[in-house]
Amino acid sequence: MKLNILGCYSATPRKNANPTSQVLEIRNHLFLIDCGEGTQVQLRLNKIKFSRIKHIFISHLHGDHFFGLVGLISTFKLLTREADLHIYGPKGLKEIITLQMKLSESWTNYKLIFHELSSKGSECIFEDDKVQVYTVPLKHRIYTNGFLFKEKNYHRKLNITAIEEAKIDMSYYSKLQQGKDVINEDGILINNEKVTFQGKKPLSYAFCSDTMFDESIVPMIANVHVLYHESTFLEKHAKLAISTKHSTAKQAARIAKQADVKKLIIGHYSTRYGSIDEFKLEAKEIFEDVALARDGKVFEF
Amino acid sequence: MKLNILGCYSATPRKNANPTSQVLEIRNHLFLIDCGEGTQVQLRLNKIKFSRIKHIFISHLHGDHFFGLVGLISTFKLLTREADLHIYGPKGLKEIITLQMKLSESWTNYKLIFHELSSKGSECIFEDDKVQVYTVPLKHRIYTNGFLFKEKNYHRKLNITAIEEAKIDMSYYSKLQQGKDVINEDGILINNEKVTFQGKKPLSYAFCSDTMFDESIVPMIANVHVLYHESTFLEKHAKLAISTKHSTAKQAARIAKQADVKKLIIGHYSTRYGSIDEFKLEAKEIFEDVALARDGKVFEF
Repeated sequence: MKLNILGCYSATPRKNANPTSQVLEIRNHLFLIDCGEGTQVQLRLNKIKFSRIKHIFISHLHGDHFFGLVGLISTFKLLTREADLHIYGPKGLKEIITLQMKLSESWTNYKLIFHELSSKGSECIFEDDKVQVYTVPLKHRIYTNGFLFKEKNYHRKLNITAIEEAKIDMSYYSKLQQGKDVINEDGILINNEKVTFQGKKPLSYAFCSDTMFDESIVPMIANVHVLYHESTFLEKHAKLAISTKHSTAKQAARIAKQADVKKLIIGHYSTRYGSIDEFKLEAKEIFEDVALARDGKVFEF
Repeated sequence: MKLNILGCYSATPRKNANPTSQVLEIRNHLFLIDCGEGTQVQLRLNKIKFSRIKHIFISHLHGDHFFGLVGLISTFKLLTREADLHIYGPKGLKEIITLQMKLSESWTNYKLIFHELSSKGSECIFEDDKVQVYTVPLKHRIYTNGFLFKEKNYHRKLNITAIEEAKIDMSYYSKLQQGKDVINEDGILINNEKVTFQGKKPLSYAFCSDTMFDESIVPMIANVHVLYHESTFLEKHAKLAISTKHSTAKQAARIAKQADVKKLIIGHYSTRYGSIDEFKLEAKEIFEDVALARDGKVFEF
């Protein structure tokens, strides 16, 4: 699992302070999460192949999280894309995009599939044989979702010595990898765990931005390996965090601690602060394994 | 008159190849012309004071000419702008902007005044005591206008020696500057031209992008001091220019020659070309005073 931060600042785009966008590589998928203005230039700078993006997740309809989407869709067209593009985001996003395509007479030559979200509860919005994606309803000024990306179980590894001793035919290997018990050459049922090792442990990533401090999300993101939680402000601006429905670095750390996650990444910094180092110091008082998002930074897990 | 090119490339934004946007400083106005994605970052890089922009002119609704507008409007709000903002552009632009403001629940706290354009003929869309702005209807794939910015006549300069000899009271100086004849202390009518010099010659700037080669615009832009004319392609791609309703560098130069302008600036280059120098060579075969637009370049007249 690999997370490439394209932009991690709030509000207005500036040079070297791009609005929210990140690419999660998980089991061969390249999921684009949020798409602020300038995201397509950041994709190029980070050498991410446009054609590998087939799913885009938009948390909410504040500009710093989606104003780059319509341009990216246009660029995909100019690059003669043919593959379907799935877009998951709040109700209204389809109208925004299609209105602009209609007025510019620039319909895409590939299929644009909108999955508009309006549920107040968590729901599974994507699933294939390797990955599931759930919404994490967040509390912000407008309808907002975080996203939880979960790897499904990996195949069990074959214990070849044990398999040969148990006299299991090769044609059963696939079933063994799937965790199933099988019958050996003598017609005896062999317990899967006796002839296989546990596969790689599945990972999970939760993206929570933008949100006020909200403990109700803890059960949903409990025990994830990596949590990205917004921290627009430092604790000295906690009142501002409340009035704008954002979080402080300390609050992000509290959520990470309560959810018992392995690693916390913070971002969505207000541009009012000269340096972002203080965000880390503040969060570390509560939660040890915290990292700062930075535009262009890649995290591998 | 000062022209600051913020972006002069066509289609998709890339690092150091920004889509169309430019700022014309003319008689204390700062007019923003087109607003592709990334324009607000370019405004910062070019140190242009956001609050001085009060009028934005959008040529047409292809993304590379306006996808940066909604973000700029949002940023004005975050900067607590109070002054009115006038936006001149094709019918439909208001719907695009207001839909996004409605869905993000982010109405501006300043007044947003849309002047939607749909006329097929040229019309005066802005006028004050110093400047006039006219549309220049262009032929492109969708409804498109160029813009003609004309300084009004400057005040005549006072010839103090002649004025004293002619015994004209100081209270008439303002009328003299306006070009009017006045009566002297002896009750005699004094011809204005005898006691004043001609003022500074008024300048004009025509912005023509995007457009196919179209001689019908020549009378409208005849004798302007500076013409910006798109040149998306080189002559070797003339067929592509026809099918996409764009122009070649040579065609831009032909228009400049026919309109007898002082200076031609070309831009809106397709990103297919490694270097843009060839555009200048090609245009120079037809028209001598040609300059290449480059992102960040400032022309002073």
